[in-house]
Amino acid sequence: MDVLSRLGGRVRLVERELWRWVPRSVKPEPLGKSMRHLFSAGGKRLRPCLVLLSCEAVGGRPEDALEAAAAVEILHTFTLIHDDVMDRDELRRGVRTVHVLWGVPMAIIAGDALFARVFEALAENVRRLGLPAEKAVEIFRSISLASFEICRGQAMDIQMAQRGTVSEREYLEMVSGKTGALLDASMKIGAIIGGGSEREIGALSVFGRKIGIAFQIRDDILGITGEESKFGKPIGSDIREGKRTLPIIYALRRLPPAERKLLEDALGRGRISESRLSRIVEMLQECGAIDYSLNLARRMVEEAKAELSAVGESEAKEILLDLADFVVTRSF
Amino acid sequence: MDVLSRLGGRVRLVERELWRWVPRSVKPEPLGKSMRHLFSAGGKRLRPCLVLLSCEAVGGRPEDALEAAAAVEILHTFTLIHDDVMDRDELRRGVRTVHVLWGVPMAIIAGDALFARVFEALAENVRRLGLPAEKAVEIFRSISLASFEICRGQAMDIQMAQRGTVSEREYLEMVSGKTGALLDASMKIGAIIGGGSEREIGALSVFGRKIGIAFQIRDDILGITGEESKFGKPIGSDIREGKRTLPIIYALRRLPPAERKLLEDALGRGRISESRLSRIVEMLQECGAIDYSLNLARRMVEEAKAELSAVGESEAKEILLDLADFVVTRSF
Repeated sequence: MDVLSRLGGRVRLVERELWRWVPRSVKPEPLGKSMRHLFSAGGKRLRPCLVLLSCEAVGGRPEDALEAAAAVEILHTFTLIHDDVMDRDELRRGVRTVHVLWGVPMAIIAGDALFARVFEALAENVRRLGLPAEKAVEIFRSISLASFEICRGQAMDIQMAQRGTVSEREYLEMVSGKTGALLDASMKIGAIIGGGSEREIGALSVFGRKIGIAFQIRDDILGITGEESKFGKPIGSDIREGKRTLPIIYALRRLPPAERKLLEDALGRGRISESRLSRIVEMLQECGAIDYSLNLARRMVEEAKAELSAVGESEAKEILLDLADFVVTRSF
Repeated sequence: MDVLSRLGGRVRLVERELWRWVPRSVKPEPLGKSMRHLFSAGGKRLRPCLVLLSCEAVGGRPEDALEAAAAVEILHTFTLIHDDVMDRDELRRGVRTVHVLWGVPMAIIAGDALFARVFEALAENVRRLGLPAEKAVEIFRSISLASFEICRGQAMDIQMAQRGTVSEREYLEMVSGKTGALLDASMKIGAIIGGGSEREIGALSVFGRKIGIAFQIRDDILGITGEESKFGKPIGSDIREGKRTLPIIYALRRLPPAERKLLEDALGRGRISESRLSRIVEMLQECGAIDYSLNLARRMVEEAKAELSAVGESEAKEILLDLADFVVTRSF
């Protein structure tokens, strides 16, 4: 059985909770519709499932962390809506993006409104469980800090696309913020709610951070070699937008001058022909950029899995180990 | 002595606290600069002062509510940055807006990053004072709900600019969200931190809501009859953007057909001549739209002041009463 089916019941719990926070009653209607749009379009619900699994891995019940799970998915969705505006992406999860359908102003507000809901959902979780103030503060602080890190990562991403050379170290810092921070925080708040020890909370956070970085590297790879129908986003758009992804950074360092120039010319060009794009994909594969990136992601995943020795055996732990592998093998 | 000088020490306390949450160390640099930009440009610091005054009005010390005070000013600033993007405004507080200086993507991220800081600052306040979990939850919930209301108000504002007729009721609902909600929440969290009773917290919240609505009506009036050098925003921009402000709504109902058509044609036109704009301002004054709006704002302020009978006499209460008057007499 593949790992996503093993999540089964948890995804359903999360889905039901999600709609509570973006109900059909939200007015005015374009705001409500634009807030709900990407939720309806699907998504793996990876982050909320991590909250539940982390809670379970330290002995808690998944039901205890429901609002927190919804909160991280809502937060993630808000960042997607704003990212799509910034990157001018027109397709996400196989559907048109919010700003394409309702305009940039409504997309900005829909993102902001979702962000507001994040903290309302967290407050409700804290209240329902009667958590002590110290735990409440830790949960709010984790999510606030993660949100800020995501913004920093996104700002670095934009800056890096405008610059010439970017080092692998800078890339990893950017990705750690843009993707690692929220997976880290998801694991952390799940473990806090589940009553984990300091050591458990720390180890589970690191697990989240590392699979987050691996997840983003896999995303970079799928953006080059993936299948659009599975991936849900146009293949090659990172190259067209001039994004400094890991395979690109590696290739810019390793390619011979003529090929390097071909790649540099294509980055950030917007419209490049399909044949030019195919040639670049070929180059990236031949120079070892894809393999190198995949190996780095695999190493991150192994390090992440090693962290789980801090928690006892459980079904949740097994699923987490499988999820870690899924992150670097997925095609969507 | 005018009311703003009476705030004196409080404004300095707030300023010092504000910079703690947007320090020069924020990287990458364009993000830090765009986050700090509007703070450096000044502002009345009305909302954070309300937090401190509300805290004092129920017997608390202003020092106890510092992070919460910073939080509401940060939240307000985030909404200004995003509003300016949505409205394509180029001037705010007499300086160029964030998106004009750093581009739309960075302005979106800077707003998001400030929003993230709001909850970090609140968490720190709760932690420092060792507030019980119920108070923490109430504070977080108030700010989350206010943020969501602001988004709803802004969405209504955009929608209303695209529609023909807007009723006064719809306008008041929009303004209650867009401006009233945060002044309400500012008073509320100040009173919670200060240890106010249920009744006190309720009355102070209503005071904030009502002066917030009056504040926005005064803003609408200043946007038509104000002096640009004092107001900091271009006079007439609401008309150019087709905003359904209270004077406009009143005038559309009262003007004779020919003049009404002149006004309707101007709304949302972008470029209209200065002489045409002067003629419209004259019309708005002659038909009583300005007086009507000012009277409504004054009535709101009187209702707000009446709420303060719920709290005992104090210097803070006196300043709040003066601030309420300031809201409808200010020229900036």
